[in-house]
Amino acid sequence: MRAAVIHASRDVRVEEVPDPVIRRPTDAVVRVLLSCICGTDLWAYRGMASFQPGQRTGHEFVGVVEDVGADVMGYAAGDLVVVPFVWSDGICGYCAEGLTTSCEQGGFWGTRGSDGGQGEAVRVPYADGTLVRLPGEAASDRRLLTALLTLSDVLGTGHHGALGAGVGPGTTVAVVGDGAVGLCGVLAAKRLGAERIIALGRHPSRTAIATAFGATDIVPERGETAVEAVRELTRGRGVPAVIEAVGTEQSMWTALQIARDGGSIGCVGVPHGSDTGLDLSDVFERNIALRGGVAPVRTYIPQLLPDVLDGVIDPSPVFDLSIGLEGIPGGYQAMDERTALKVLISY
Amino acid sequence: MRAAVIHASRDVRVEEVPDPVIRRPTDAVVRVLLSCICGTDLWAYRGMASFQPGQRTGHEFVGVVEDVGADVMGYAAGDLVVVPFVWSDGICGYCAEGLTTSCEQGGFWGTRGSDGGQGEAVRVPYADGTLVRLPGEAASDRRLLTALLTLSDVLGTGHHGALGAGVGPGTTVAVVGDGAVGLCGVLAAKRLGAERIIALGRHPSRTAIATAFGATDIVPERGETAVEAVRELTRGRGVPAVIEAVGTEQSMWTALQIARDGGSIGCVGVPHGSDTGLDLSDVFERNIALRGGVAPVRTYIPQLLPDVLDGVIDPSPVFDLSIGLEGIPGGYQAMDERTALKVLISY
Repeated sequence: MRAAVIHASRDVRVEEVPDPVIRRPTDAVVRVLLSCICGTDLWAYRGMASFQPGQRTGHEFVGVVEDVGADVMGYAAGDLVVVPFVWSDGICGYCAEGLTTSCEQGGFWGTRGSDGGQGEAVRVPYADGTLVRLPGEAASDRRLLTALLTLSDVLGTGHHGALGAGVGPGTTVAVVGDGAVGLCGVLAAKRLGAERIIALGRHPSRTAIATAFGATDIVPERGETAVEAVRELTRGRGVPAVIEAVGTEQSMWTALQIARDGGSIGCVGVPHGSDTGLDLSDVFERNIALRGGVAPVRTYIPQLLPDVLDGVIDPSPVFDLSIGLEGIPGGYQAMDERTALKVLISY
Repeated sequence: MRAAVIHASRDVRVEEVPDPVIRRPTDAVVRVLLSCICGTDLWAYRGMASFQPGQRTGHEFVGVVEDVGADVMGYAAGDLVVVPFVWSDGICGYCAEGLTTSCEQGGFWGTRGSDGGQGEAVRVPYADGTLVRLPGEAASDRRLLTALLTLSDVLGTGHHGALGAGVGPGTTVAVVGDGAVGLCGVLAAKRLGAERIIALGRHPSRTAIATAFGATDIVPERGETAVEAVRELTRGRGVPAVIEAVGTEQSMWTALQIARDGGSIGCVGVPHGSDTGLDLSDVFERNIALRGGVAPVRTYIPQLLPDVLDGVIDPSPVFDLSIGLEGIPGGYQAMDERTALKVLISY
């Protein structure tokens, strides 16, 4: 089959790889219908995260089960499924608690010996724990299937950020970052009942989506000017809830500065650098809570799925470029150059 | 009157200072009955925190109201009161929310123009917001008055750490640090219903108090050995709740290492150093929540007071050395040399 492979920084190729087969009785093989490129894929692409040359790429996909191992009880060939960005066994203590990203048998797509989501098919470990079934008719509804694809990562990650920020009915929340996760944070905050949603982002095409997703205010400034703007919008006080959806030193600083004393920052931007510019003394003096992390989206899919199926929320606008499998290298380039927000890949 | 003044590192003197008087109509003057020396006082004493040479010291005291300004409605001369380590107006938005440490009119004892708790009397700003009345008969019960003094800081701070760690009925919690705050963290966790309380501390006289306060396990090791010991006590998993009551790089590292994925660290040790050795990537990957900060003890006093008055909890054993006013320099030395855990000052 064909799949995307990263060989070096800025060298992602689509090439022939072995067809996936059932290796363990708990495996399934899923033929991919849609996958996509994630902001976190860019870190390896830019040489800013380590990778094994030759490893597969991509970790978000929906598809159809093609084969299952002898121990897989819940799925059969022909099932339409969405697959989280971390596989998990579904039965360990962490999975039972809903923290599927800490699963004792869990792992990330593209790591040694595993397939990536940017390919024609994928061997899925612990299929019963990992996969989530979708109604079969969604396969023929392109818009809906695209929306469902976000359950793999960005929608659940935005939801995790909103939960970490403590968003609930009536909350005023700010979202730092206008990437797909930040936009899904806006959507998730709206869904959870936030009353005022301040989106920080400087790309008009992206902040337009934020507005469509429920943002009530847009702050296009950066740095101290952005902090002043948010404080002005909140009578000098800052916001009690912040979703941090970037993970850089600058964005963490901004999140902290716009947070109201006693507020919570829901951190879902993967931190780059060990300290990420975080002034713990300031965090301490102002009683700011830092919550969040790698989102256990497997746990969130059943919670979010009904609203996506019913059209209560439609995250599909986060995709603004659609390509085929052979276009993946160009898709990376487009996201790297920020000419695309998030790239959809059809098979 | 006489009060303690810090002139330089390791140079605290008791000297004549002006008697406090009502300056604003919201002030009260409180004659001090008991005060004490705090671990945080040592940072200036050791030259590791900035101070104005000549400034007053101490921020924990109980006493009797001697005079009140014209606008003070709730207190009158003769009232026995306990005073939190931060004054607060009681009426701003933050006070209304219970975050009295972020009060818009709030401040710390010993800062420019204000008295310190280690003196014969103190001018208390915003008396109605700041003071908490105690039953007058407690003044003649030395053990009880000593216990009530901890409401000024360490008991409320331990409670804040326990809340930040998410302690509730049945929780397994670890407490990093066997100083007065750590010990009060044990007591607060026990009061909140923790089932298992693992106290990390290497001073037998202190861990004996931890045991008396409700600790079920003592880990005297430090560093990686301590982490291994806690993991062994918890089947390799670590604890879902950690109270961090030291604030150093080493203690933050330990707190993070012993925390179970998805757990919470209630941070009440004042951070020393801006990053404090915190690996944000690890925090993120394991979904550890960091909560806490400067404890709004004014809010907690009414919650904790009944249990102290009724003898349900008795934090008085955290004091292991009792001195008079003139003995304050020796008291600092004893705490600096760790021959005393916490020093009580009688007037």
